[in-house]
Amino acid sequence: MVVGADAAGMSAAHQALRTARRTGDELAITVLDRGTHTSYSACGIPYWMAGEVGSVDELVARTAEQHRAAGIDLRLGTEVVAADVAARTVTTAAGETLEYDELVVATGAPAIVPDWALRPDGTPYDMVGPVKTLDDGAAWLDRFDAAGDGAHVVVVGAGYIGVEVAEAALRRGLGVTVVTRGRGLALLEDEMSERVAVALCDAGAEVVLGVEVTGLDVAQDGAGAERVTGVRWEGDQRDADLVVLAIGVRPGTDFLTGSGLETADNGALRPDPHGRVADGVWAAGDCCEVRRRIDDRWVFRPLGTHATKHGRALGDSLAGGELAFQGIVDTSITRFAAGGQYLEIARTGLGRAEAEEAGHDPVTLVTEGTTATGYMPEADPIAVWVMADRDTRRLLGVQVVGGHGAGKRVDTAAAVLWAQGTVDDLAWMDLAYAPPFSSTWDVLQIAARRVAERI
Amino acid sequence: MVVGADAAGMSAAHQALRTARRTGDELAITVLDRGTHTSYSACGIPYWMAGEVGSVDELVARTAEQHRAAGIDLRLGTEVVAADVAARTVTTAAGETLEYDELVVATGAPAIVPDWALRPDGTPYDMVGPVKTLDDGAAWLDRFDAAGDGAHVVVVGAGYIGVEVAEAALRRGLGVTVVTRGRGLALLEDEMSERVAVALCDAGAEVVLGVEVTGLDVAQDGAGAERVTGVRWEGDQRDADLVVLAIGVRPGTDFLTGSGLETADNGALRPDPHGRVADGVWAAGDCCEVRRRIDDRWVFRPLGTHATKHGRALGDSLAGGELAFQGIVDTSITRFAAGGQYLEIARTGLGRAEAEEAGHDPVTLVTEGTTATGYMPEADPIAVWVMADRDTRRLLGVQVVGGHGAGKRVDTAAAVLWAQGTVDDLAWMDLAYAPPFSSTWDVLQIAARRVAERI
Repeated sequence: MVVGADAAGMSAAHQALRTARRTGDELAITVLDRGTHTSYSACGIPYWMAGEVGSVDELVARTAEQHRAAGIDLRLGTEVVAADVAARTVTTAAGETLEYDELVVATGAPAIVPDWALRPDGTPYDMVGPVKTLDDGAAWLDRFDAAGDGAHVVVVGAGYIGVEVAEAALRRGLGVTVVTRGRGLALLEDEMSERVAVALCDAGAEVVLGVEVTGLDVAQDGAGAERVTGVRWEGDQRDADLVVLAIGVRPGTDFLTGSGLETADNGALRPDPHGRVADGVWAAGDCCEVRRRIDDRWVFRPLGTHATKHGRALGDSLAGGELAFQGIVDTSITRFAAGGQYLEIARTGLGRAEAEEAGHDPVTLVTEGTTATGYMPEADPIAVWVMADRDTRRLLGVQVVGGHGAGKRVDTAAAVLWAQGTVDDLAWMDLAYAPPFSSTWDVLQIAARRVAERI
Repeated sequence: MVVGADAAGMSAAHQALRTARRTGDELAITVLDRGTHTSYSACGIPYWMAGEVGSVDELVARTAEQHRAAGIDLRLGTEVVAADVAARTVTTAAGETLEYDELVVATGAPAIVPDWALRPDGTPYDMVGPVKTLDDGAAWLDRFDAAGDGAHVVVVGAGYIGVEVAEAALRRGLGVTVVTRGRGLALLEDEMSERVAVALCDAGAEVVLGVEVTGLDVAQDGAGAERVTGVRWEGDQRDADLVVLAIGVRPGTDFLTGSGLETADNGALRPDPHGRVADGVWAAGDCCEVRRRIDDRWVFRPLGTHATKHGRALGDSLAGGELAFQGIVDTSITRFAAGGQYLEIARTGLGRAEAEEAGHDPVTLVTEGTTATGYMPEADPIAVWVMADRDTRRLLGVQVVGGHGAGKRVDTAAAVLWAQGTVDDLAWMDLAYAPPFSSTWDVLQIAARRVAERI
């Protein structure tokens, strides 16, 4: 019994079937999902909103029919509201009680909608909402149409989704204000995130840093209907036709309240590398935290790439296999491309504060270089932040902001982190060089070398 | 006394000065070079030929004046023809004998010019030559002008230089035939290199595989001057106005004959990680072989990125430092972009034959995927060849051929090879995912996973 028909759940279901074919296990898999879509790319929604992806169908990796054809009993529109782990049953919103032998929790992470974004009666405003589900995406396309040319969007939050939605809105010709309580793009060090903020501004967006949104301005039209007209924070406000909530997500585990299953303070499950949570209970994906190898800590990183990997390991293990999810090194990436600006933005490893918390004595430095040899037309500026431990010389983190070819460079650093390598490994290893692709020493290596020289 | 004023030699000289400032060593550095340029990017010459790099000045990283301003006694036009290691002297072509305390051999690797490419008296033909020095590059620009529109170039050799020169000639609107004795692009497995050959053909070039060029067709014009009109091989020929020799290079160590220094059969020196060859003798760069970490073998890989790294380690060590060149994992990259085709081409690690020779039982597979998530406009096709050892599961090699963003993906595999990781490490590690940059599982990970499943 799998609850949740997206990346983690369906990866688990299909891998369980594949492994069962090998091990000879007989599996009957039921998947319940409260929504109407399966296996869609939540990460693609901003690009659908931008008009880069033409049709919602393209975002659906596998349809319900395809899952069913593979032998999975998929029941959409079926919300699970409670689980009894001792009795091995779940209860649906329709009041049905369903038995299971093994429960897979893959309920994902719904968007956070703060109280100030709702009417007093708790219902949502028309032109305000998050960007999480395909229904959200469809609603935003309708709202963009309804708001018309010249409308202004306030995006609350400057995480990856915030930046991606700002890109989408700018590409659609809308006015954009990004408001965040942070000092820049979440998940980057300040000295890197300010480069993203500058690009947003240069592309025509307004960026308001370090403020906490406290409420919406609401007006009544002639017919008495309420309409959002602005976003307020301490000391200021902005007029807004549309308000995007890009504040984050939280583990979708409310239905487990009272089930006896232990969760982290934020509600996340903490499965082992095979996806086991408790006797008869498994979990993977955005409803879980993941283990960060560098400092051996649990962190909440609701990303599709972790969900599919952990789901696959879970499915294999459930059917008698041995695949294990090996944890993360906290790699992520996005892009900002609008208004003549183009930035690839990526990180891996720890931030400075995390490194200090883990007992390291971090040495950090930003190095500026180019993505290709300087004389090539492909050469774009790139800034690389590198952090290493002063005592052990271990690489601790790398962040990059730059033009074409900048972002995926963090993968190389991620591989060094994966192997617990040093900043010297990164500086001296054998990376691919030719003029269209890098300087003789790749900028990543120059950056690592400069940190190595300062230790 | 440094012989050779390019990547390795000048990296060594400058690093020695830097380290000496720290260690307090007093160093007087003399650099001799038979040419007229210093520190130029040989790798950039094809792009200069293509017209992508506007001026030869852009290819010169540091001028002679800049080196001299740093305190280096740089003597251009000074060819060293012999060395007496016991007496610690070198002899120049002008008959001068110069004393040294420490000798740094950084003479690079001149292009191979086969006998069939020369007149009977050993002099070169006007429209035939290699692509190695800045003078070669300038000569090619003159030849392109002289040959005029519609001229036909035969490129002999399909290594990286061959492919890059084919790109340059196609971009200039010339007809191109690439002739190679190999079965495809050198340094790639056949199943990968055939993709490059197809792209060359689709771009309008002719590719002739598996033939050995035996001679040139030469005609006399009215004035009695000889002119090359074609290239011959067993059973066939092609008309040619221009013939590019892209057959390879060889270590420039002829002047060491009789010096008592040991070289490999190909003439290459084999310095230790600090650049030491013998008492009082150091070497780095294209005149050397490098140590391949994967199978612990000496290989001849005349690449600028190895030369600058090894040169830097040498200079540091010479001045009392401890930097060491850590060897290679055989990474390299190029691009083919002409005639509407765009391919990034890269490799790291061993080839199948090398792996077998090293006693491995290799499992290999080609996986086709996309550089970005399929629904994104950025998604280009990419093919990834992965090889791992059946017994130890160690990753042994990765090759990629694909569109924008394909090539530098080998760096991630190179980092895994550097750390002696397994194919499972590559499959399960935490690489950056967002729709414009990769599929949920990066194609490199899908490829590694598929190999892992077949072991």
